[in-house]
Amino acid sequence: MTVEARLNELGITLPQAAAPVASYVPVVVQGGMAHVSGQLPFVDGVLKTGRLGEDVDLDGGMEAARACGLMILAQLKAAGLLEKVERVVKLGAFVNSTGDFTDQPKVANGASDLMFEVFGEKGRHARAAVGVPVLPLGAAVEVDAVIAISE
Amino acid sequence: MTVEARLNELGITLPQAAAPVASYVPVVVQGGMAHVSGQLPFVDGVLKTGRLGEDVDLDGGMEAARACGLMILAQLKAAGLLEKVERVVKLGAFVNSTGDFTDQPKVANGASDLMFEVFGEKGRHARAAVGVPVLPLGAAVEVDAVIAISE
Amino acid sequence: MTVEARLNELGITLPQAAAPVASYVPVVVQGGMAHVSGQLPFVDGVLKTGRLGEDVDLDGGMEAARACGLMILAQLKAAGLLEKVERVVKLGAFVNSTGDFTDQPKVANGASDLMFEVFGEKGRHARAAVGVPVLPLGAAVEVDAVIAISE
Repeated sequence: MTVEARLNELGITLPQAAAPVASYVPVVVQGGMAHVSGQLPFVDGVLKTGRLGEDVDLDGGMEAARACGLMILAQLKAAGLLEKVERVVKLGAFVNSTGDFTDQPKVANGASDLMFEVFGEKGRHARAAVGVPVLPLGAAVEVDAVIAISE
Repeated sequence: MTVEARLNELGITLPQAAAPVASYVPVVVQGGMAHVSGQLPFVDGVLKTGRLGEDVDLDGGMEAARACGLMILAQLKAAGLLEKVERVVKLGAFVNSTGDFTDQPKVANGASDLMFEVFGEKGRHARAAVGVPVLPLGAAVEVDAVIAISE
Repeated sequence: MTVEARLNELGITLPQAAAPVASYVPVVVQGGMAHVSGQLPFVDGVLKTGRLGEDVDLDGGMEAARACGLMILAQLKAAGLLEKVERVVKLGAFVNSTGDFTDQPKVANGASDLMFEVFGEKGRHARAAVGVPVLPLGAAVEVDAVIAISE
């Protein structure tokens, strides 16, 4: 089954791949690895902003992380790489957090679970999830990725 | 000398490899590189929590970073990779810090020095060390790693 | 044209490659990739300290990020790799930020634009830019890098 077919089966429509907010590119492929820039959580074109522990709850955070994951998939598709994913290798999840919010792993699961849903075992990845005090444009979550690409 | 023998020589007992706090895996090997998920500082099964500049002093921070490093080694061992380490390539150290604590490099040395102790020259790595306002479960330090693995 | 010649053409003098603040190395090359440790913004030997949203303005932040980028180039040169850059693959930009400063991408452009100036298309990279509450020695910005190296 193609990844596109699997996305359809899951009822997932990918967002429009966001243009970089600044002077860099969304994806660089080198040595069989796609390095995907940190993606922000746009849902229907609107950025999910806010801070965990303040004005975003756990469900909202997980939804934001999932939106970051969808944007990673959208960037891979825009780069013609979506059907060539060999392994999701690493996700880096940055969660906009107050100093007393410590559930970054649960928030990041929004992106991690998506990768497993879409890619199955190939979607299992290493991960780092940390809190940050603020993110670009006030985003609630940012996620970057390293993805192995088949030749 | 095997790495296990060297650990014995140093009097180091590795902790039990911690299960991921969430839906990801501890280690992914791809293209000769092991990507190790961000590890938290469990000592005798108890997480070292707190914040540098607040309720954790420099020694406590270094000890926490070393505990993260030991957990990286424990994860490599659990994955059958400990004796195949060719080079410690990169460590990423995230230090739970108040806004006026600026000794993240010294804290991160707890993990860096461990890698040199255990692996010698092969343990010398690139590194980024930054402050963060909070970490999963309130951990004092989190460290992730990229490790080259011999075939 | 060599990279050195291009730097001359741009009127750029690289700083002295900074010694690591701690027990690690500035660059590790493995599998055709140079992993460059997080670099701090030294200008004429003086560290640019401060926090965006507090005592560093956007221009100062961009200048600091550019200084980090110059230090990345200086480290590559010191390692004998400057003329072997095949592609700037990924930059990680950590911006010392108050909780309401959200222009991390613009700040990080100080480093990103430099890479494009110096390397042209080979300088286009993936990137993650996040806010952090504090950085080593009070630095305003820290940037690390993954650089593909030709054999």
